[in-house]
Amino acid sequence: MSAAWLEAIRWTSEGLVPVIAQQQDSGKVLMFAWMNREALALTAEEGYAVYWSRSRQKIWRKGEQSGNRQKVHGIFLDCDEDVILLQIEQQGGIACHTGRESCFFRRLTEHGWQVVAPVLKDPALIYRQPDQASE
Amino acid sequence: MSAAWLEAIRWTSEGLVPVIAQQQDSGKVLMFAWMNREALALTAEEGYAVYWSRSRQKIWRKGEQSGNRQKVHGIFLDCDEDVILLQIEQQGGIACHTGRESCFFRRLTEHGWQVVAPVLKDPALIYRQPDQASE
Repeated sequence: MSAAWLEAIRWTSEGLVPVIAQQQDSGKVLMFAWMNREALALTAEEGYAVYWSRSRQKIWRKGEQSGNRQKVHGIFLDCDEDVILLQIEQQGGIACHTGRESCFFRRLTEHGWQVVAPVLKDPALIYRQPDQASE
Repeated sequence: MSAAWLEAIRWTSEGLVPVIAQQQDSGKVLMFAWMNREALALTAEEGYAVYWSRSRQKIWRKGEQSGNRQKVHGIFLDCDEDVILLQIEQQGGIACHTGRESCFFRRLTEHGWQVVAPVLKDPALIYRQPDQASE
């Protein structure tokens, strides 16, 4: 596969593209992150999600510490060629560094944001180096 | 409801937050857009998705021309407080300005990006002013 498909993407001025990761069978939206050209090429090549960590300024193989890797089932591009949708199978059932299935665990109610999803595993048990757990 | 919940959000330097719109029953990811504080407040208040159009630099009531409004079922915030997930009911069944259900209609194959979803309605019939159809 040539790199022509990478050229189709309209990268931000920092060379990034926003990525939505969705559990392929349930349709649950699990997380949102960024990729640069290298991360997206590696994702397609390796078959597992590889992001660009903006805070650490480096390639971030999702699950490299936790083991909760994301097996890629489909890579989709939007109409404006500037957003990627990744359909994945979340290994370990935990995408969020808080130990929850999804990062979107707060819901707006009349009392403000309410946590609506349980912690499935203590983050201290997921990560050996907790400071590297989040993007 | 006070504006305290709006304070919880970590807005970008331009005062925006990225928003993922998902069809609430099917789980289909329909589109990705941006909101500023006013747009998010209006979304919560009116019960229909209101975005910030970066290209037009104005409040954008989704469906104001096409009639394809997005009725809000749930507003979710992620772990880093900087991304919103909107669960909506897409009226008219078309979220994309190309006349497709979802904006994510191109899938990466070994031959590059392939269109995998049909145009449900000719955009010329959806919009009276096509130049205002996209973000």
